[in-house]
Amino acid sequence: MKRTSYAGLVNETFVGQEVVLKGWVQKRRDLGGLIFIDLRDREGIVQLVFSQEFGADAWAVADKFRNEYVVEVQGVVKNRADREINPKMKTGKVEVEIHNATLLAAAKNPPFYIEDDINVSDELRLEYRYLDLRRPEMQNNLKIRAAISRATHSYFDNNDFIEIETPQLAASSPEGARDYLVPSRVYPGHFYALPQSPQLFKQLLMGAGYDRYYQIARCFRDEDLRGDRQPEFTQIDVETSFLTIPEIQEITEGLLKKVMKDAVNVEIDSIPEITWQESMDRFGTDKPDIRFEMELQDISDVVKDIDFKVFNNAIENGGFVKAIVVPGGADKYSRKDLDKKTQYIERFGAKGMAWIKITEDGFTGPVGKFLKVKEAEISEALGAKKGDLILFAADNFKIVSDTLGYLRNAIGSEMEMIDESKFAFIWVVDWPLFEYDEGIKRWISAHHPFTMPNEEDVHYLNEGEDPHKAHAQSYDIVLNGYELGGGSIRIHTREIQEKMLRALGFTPERAEKAFGYLLKALDMGFPPHGGLAIGLDRFAMLLAKRQNIRDVIAFPKNSKATEPMTKAPSLVSDQQLTDLGLFISPNVEE
Amino acid sequence: MKRTSYAGLVNETFVGQEVVLKGWVQKRRDLGGLIFIDLRDREGIVQLVFSQEFGADAWAVADKFRNEYVVEVQGVVKNRADREINPKMKTGKVEVEIHNATLLAAAKNPPFYIEDDINVSDELRLEYRYLDLRRPEMQNNLKIRAAISRATHSYFDNNDFIEIETPQLAASSPEGARDYLVPSRVYPGHFYALPQSPQLFKQLLMGAGYDRYYQIARCFRDEDLRGDRQPEFTQIDVETSFLTIPEIQEITEGLLKKVMKDAVNVEIDSIPEITWQESMDRFGTDKPDIRFEMELQDISDVVKDIDFKVFNNAIENGGFVKAIVVPGGADKYSRKDLDKKTQYIERFGAKGMAWIKITEDGFTGPVGKFLKVKEAEISEALGAKKGDLILFAADNFKIVSDTLGYLRNAIGSEMEMIDESKFAFIWVVDWPLFEYDEGIKRWISAHHPFTMPNEEDVHYLNEGEDPHKAHAQSYDIVLNGYELGGGSIRIHTREIQEKMLRALGFTPERAEKAFGYLLKALDMGFPPHGGLAIGLDRFAMLLAKRQNIRDVIAFPKNSKATEPMTKAPSLVSDQQLTDLGLFISPNVEE
Repeated sequence: MKRTSYAGLVNETFVGQEVVLKGWVQKRRDLGGLIFIDLRDREGIVQLVFSQEFGADAWAVADKFRNEYVVEVQGVVKNRADREINPKMKTGKVEVEIHNATLLAAAKNPPFYIEDDINVSDELRLEYRYLDLRRPEMQNNLKIRAAISRATHSYFDNNDFIEIETPQLAASSPEGARDYLVPSRVYPGHFYALPQSPQLFKQLLMGAGYDRYYQIARCFRDEDLRGDRQPEFTQIDVETSFLTIPEIQEITEGLLKKVMKDAVNVEIDSIPEITWQESMDRFGTDKPDIRFEMELQDISDVVKDIDFKVFNNAIENGGFVKAIVVPGGADKYSRKDLDKKTQYIERFGAKGMAWIKITEDGFTGPVGKFLKVKEAEISEALGAKKGDLILFAADNFKIVSDTLGYLRNAIGSEMEMIDESKFAFIWVVDWPLFEYDEGIKRWISAHHPFTMPNEEDVHYLNEGEDPHKAHAQSYDIVLNGYELGGGSIRIHTREIQEKMLRALGFTPERAEKAFGYLLKALDMGFPPHGGLAIGLDRFAMLLAKRQNIRDVIAFPKNSKATEPMTKAPSLVSDQQLTDLGLFISPNVEE
Repeated sequence: MKRTSYAGLVNETFVGQEVVLKGWVQKRRDLGGLIFIDLRDREGIVQLVFSQEFGADAWAVADKFRNEYVVEVQGVVKNRADREINPKMKTGKVEVEIHNATLLAAAKNPPFYIEDDINVSDELRLEYRYLDLRRPEMQNNLKIRAAISRATHSYFDNNDFIEIETPQLAASSPEGARDYLVPSRVYPGHFYALPQSPQLFKQLLMGAGYDRYYQIARCFRDEDLRGDRQPEFTQIDVETSFLTIPEIQEITEGLLKKVMKDAVNVEIDSIPEITWQESMDRFGTDKPDIRFEMELQDISDVVKDIDFKVFNNAIENGGFVKAIVVPGGADKYSRKDLDKKTQYIERFGAKGMAWIKITEDGFTGPVGKFLKVKEAEISEALGAKKGDLILFAADNFKIVSDTLGYLRNAIGSEMEMIDESKFAFIWVVDWPLFEYDEGIKRWISAHHPFTMPNEEDVHYLNEGEDPHKAHAQSYDIVLNGYELGGGSIRIHTREIQEKMLRALGFTPERAEKAFGYLLKALDMGFPPHGGLAIGLDRFAMLLAKRQNIRDVIAFPKNSKATEPMTKAPSLVSDQQLTDLGLFISPNVEE
C-alpha cells in the first residue's frame, strides 16, 4: 500500500481519515489487551493502538513487534481522550487505531536507544553510525546541513551564477596542508592530488569568461582529525569577475541572509566590518566573537612609569601591556583558577599572567602592590570597578593578542557572557599579505599566493622593498568566533604574480615549474577577479549548535563506515611502488 | 565603475541609455578614423564604436586594443543605421558609442580564434583549455550542464528529498571497475578508495531512516579514457524507502521532465517501458534507440527448411536467424560497403554476414541463390520490398543480438533515419539478475550484488537451484540509445543478501570480510528501499548534442590543466611502499 503521510506529520487535521504509515517501532507498551506502539519516521512519532476489536489480525501481527522493527500499518486517526493528550508531541492530540499491519523487517535489539541525549560512548555511536543517524537530533543536524545546501543552490542559481564542477584528480596546487595523492594505474608512476580547494580552476574559469561561478566542492587535507576538522570537507566556493570587495561582500551577505532564514529561520542584519588590525587590537584574534564585550585595552601608556619589571621590559622591547576587565570576576575566580589559566597560556609564549582583583581594599593579588600606585588611573582607563578582575598581558603583539584573545573567549564562556542563541557575523578585512610561520621559520602567504596586495602596497613586492609590509585585498567572514570563510581579490596579471612568487622565495625556475600553467594563462587576458569560500561543515555545525563537526556529517572519517583498508592485494609494479611519494606543497617545502 | 549590463544583452531596449560594459575584445576594425570593437562576454557580443568625437581619450585607449584584451567601457547605446543592422546578432540593431575606456588586462595573440567551429587540433584546444572554454559553444555546453544541476536540485528539494553528502574516502565497495586508491599519511599502510558510486552509503541512509535521499555525487573509475567516459564522473544519485518500481519511475520521470524543460526547453511525454527481453529481441541491445524503426525480426521458422548451412547450423545449435530490412538500402550499399560491415561484426563473434538485395530480379547477392526458394515467404515475413537490403545474422542469441543491434544503429545513422532533434527516453526493465562475463569467465551481477531479485525468483538463490534464471527488480533509463542511468529495488534483509553473495561465489568468510558491515546493519531493521543513478556527464553530452563527453566537462582528464604529477618527493616509508597495492574488487577477484 502507498504511504499516505509521514507518521510524524499526523495531527488533529487528520482525525477521521484513513492513513497508511510506514516506519520504525520506537516503543511498545501493552495495557489491558491493547498494544500501543510509538511509530517513528523521519518526521517524528505517532501513537498507534492495536486491539482485537480494531483488527484481530493486525493485533496478532503487532504482538510480535519489538523496538526498531520496520512496519507498515493502516488505520483511522482518532482524537485522544483529554487525559491522554501529550502537549510535547506534534502528534500528541491523536492516535491511530490500526486495522491492518505488516512486518516489513525485523531488527535485533539495538545497542542504544534511538532517542536524543543518549549516554553512550562516541565509539559505539560511530560503530553503529546507521543507528546513531536514526536519532532525531542527528536527523535534524543533517536536515540543517541540507537546508544550507538548498539555500545556496537557490541563491546562486537566482543570481546569474553558473555552477561548474572542477576536477578532483589533478596536479597539486599549493595550500597550507598536505595533499592526498592518488597513484594512477593507467599512467604508471604518475600521481594525482585531491584538491585542497578549487582555487586555480576557478581562477581559470574567470580567465575563460564565466564571470560568476559557484560550486559546492569537496576538498581534502591529509591531516589528523580534530573536533572542528575532517580530512575531507565541503566548501561553498565562489568566484566573480570585475567586482570590487564591497560588491563581493554584498553578494555574500545575500547568501548568508538566505541561508540563515531558510536553515534556522533567523533574520540577520547587515554584517559589520572590522580591519584585521582592529580585530587583533580589540579582540586579540582575527576571528572575533562579538556576541560579548570584555575587549582588550592597551594601557601601556598608563603603566609605563610604574616600577614593575614585567611591564617595563615588555614596553622597552617594543611590546605592549594590555588588559581585559572581567566584570564581577573577583569573586568568581580563585587564585587556583587563575594559576591554571597562567599555566595554560604558556602555550602562547606568555611568561606569566599578571592579575588583580578590585576589592574593598582596592587592588589585591600578587601584583597588586606594584600597580597600587596608579590604582585610580588604571581603574579609570579600563573602566574597572569594585568586584572586577583585571587580567594583564605584557609581551610582544602576537603573544599579548593570543593570550588575551584566548582568555577573553574562555572567561566569556565561563562567566556566561555569551548569548548562545545569537548568530553574530563580522567581516575581517585588510589582512597582512604574509604571515610568519613559526613552524617552518619563514614567511608564507596569509591566504594563498594568488591574493592581490592592496593597490598602494603593490610596490612592496618590488626588489629591494620589504614585501612583508604589504596588506592584502582579502576578507574573512567570521561567525560567533569561528572563521566561516574568506576570500580575496586575486592577482590577474603575470607581472604581479611573478613578483608575488619571488617574494615567497620562488626562483623563476621553481615558479615556472609549480605555476607555469597559471602564469602562461595570465598572459592571455584575465579579468580582475575575486571570490571566496565558505566552510559548509563548520557552517552546519554552528547553525546546529554542535561542538563537533562530525555531528553534521553523515559518515565522518572516524566512523566504522569510512575506515581505510589495509594491505589490499598488490597489482602494481616495483617501479610504481618506488615512485610513490607524498607531495610537499611549495608553501612548506624548502 | 560598476557594470550595468552584460555586453551580449544590450539590445534595442537600451537605446539612449548610458551603459558600462566589461569584457574581451573579440575583433577590431578601423574605418575612416573610427574604431569598431566587438566586445564579448559570457552572454554574447555587442559592437562598440570609438571616435575622436565621442571621446578622444577613449579613442586613444582603444587604439591599443588587440584581440582578447580585457577592457572596460562606458558609452551610450544607439540604433545602428538600417544598412548596418545585423539580424543574426541578438545585439545586431544597436551599437555603443564609447566615451570612456580602460584597458584592464592585455593579452597575447591567442593560438586560435575564440569562436565556434574552429578547425584546430583537439590537443591545442586542450592545452589552452581556458581559451577553448571562452568559445560560445563551450560556454553553452557548460550552461546546459549547469541547468541540469539546477533543475535537479530544484526538483528534489521540492519533493521532500534530503541532500546528503557521502564520503569520498572510504573502503572499497565492489563495482565493476578498478578503484583509485589513496594512501593515508596519518594511518600508514592504510588506503582509502575513491567511490565508484555511493551505493552502500545511500543504502545505509535508508537504514538510518532518511526516507528520500539525493546527491549529485562525484564518482571515480581508474580506467582508460573513452569518448563517452572519464575516470571521474558525476551522477545524480537517488534512494528512497518504501516505494515500488512504478513510484520510483514516476519520481524519475518528474525529474527528467523538469530537466528537459529547464535545460533545453523540450516537453517530453510519459516514458515508455520495455522489458530487457523485448528490447534485445526487437533492437538487439539493452539500450534501444527508439527514434527509428528497422527492428530485428526473427525468421528462424521461415528459413529453417531452406538448405543453407549457415542458417541450418545456427538453428540446430539452439540459435536464431534474424534480420533487419533496410528500406531503400539496395542501391545505397555496395558489396564493398557490406564487406566492410562483415569484417567489423567479427568483433561480436559473428562468423559472417548474409545479405540480399531485392532487385528487379528478386533476391540477389552472394546468398541470394540459397534463399530464392522462399523469396516470397521471406519478403512477406519481413515486410521487405523491391529496393530494400536485408541483413541476416544466424548464431546464438548474444551474437545475433550484438551483430544486428550494431548494424541497426550504424545503418540507421548512415541512412539518416534518425531524427536528431528528438529526445527519446525509454525504460528497460526486468533485467536478468546475473550476466556471464566472457572476460573473467564467470557469472557476475548484471547491476550490483545488492539488487533484489523478482519476488517469484528469490527461490532461485536457494542451494540446489539455478540462480542464473532469476530476474531482477531493476530498471534502466535509456536516452537516444545511450544508457542514461539505472537502478533497482535493493535487498533489505540479511538472509537474501547472504544468499545473493553465495550465488556470486562468496564463501561465508569472504562475504563477511567484504560485506560484514552491511550484513550486520541489515540485522538492525532496514526498510524496503530502492533508487537509481543518472549519469550527469552523459546527460549533458546528449542534451548539448555533442559526441564527446569532454565537451561538457570544464577540465576533462586529458586537458593540460588536469595532468597527473610524476615522481613527487617521497615521504613514505619502505613499509608503506611495500604495502601499496591496487584493490581487486570482489566482482573480478578470483
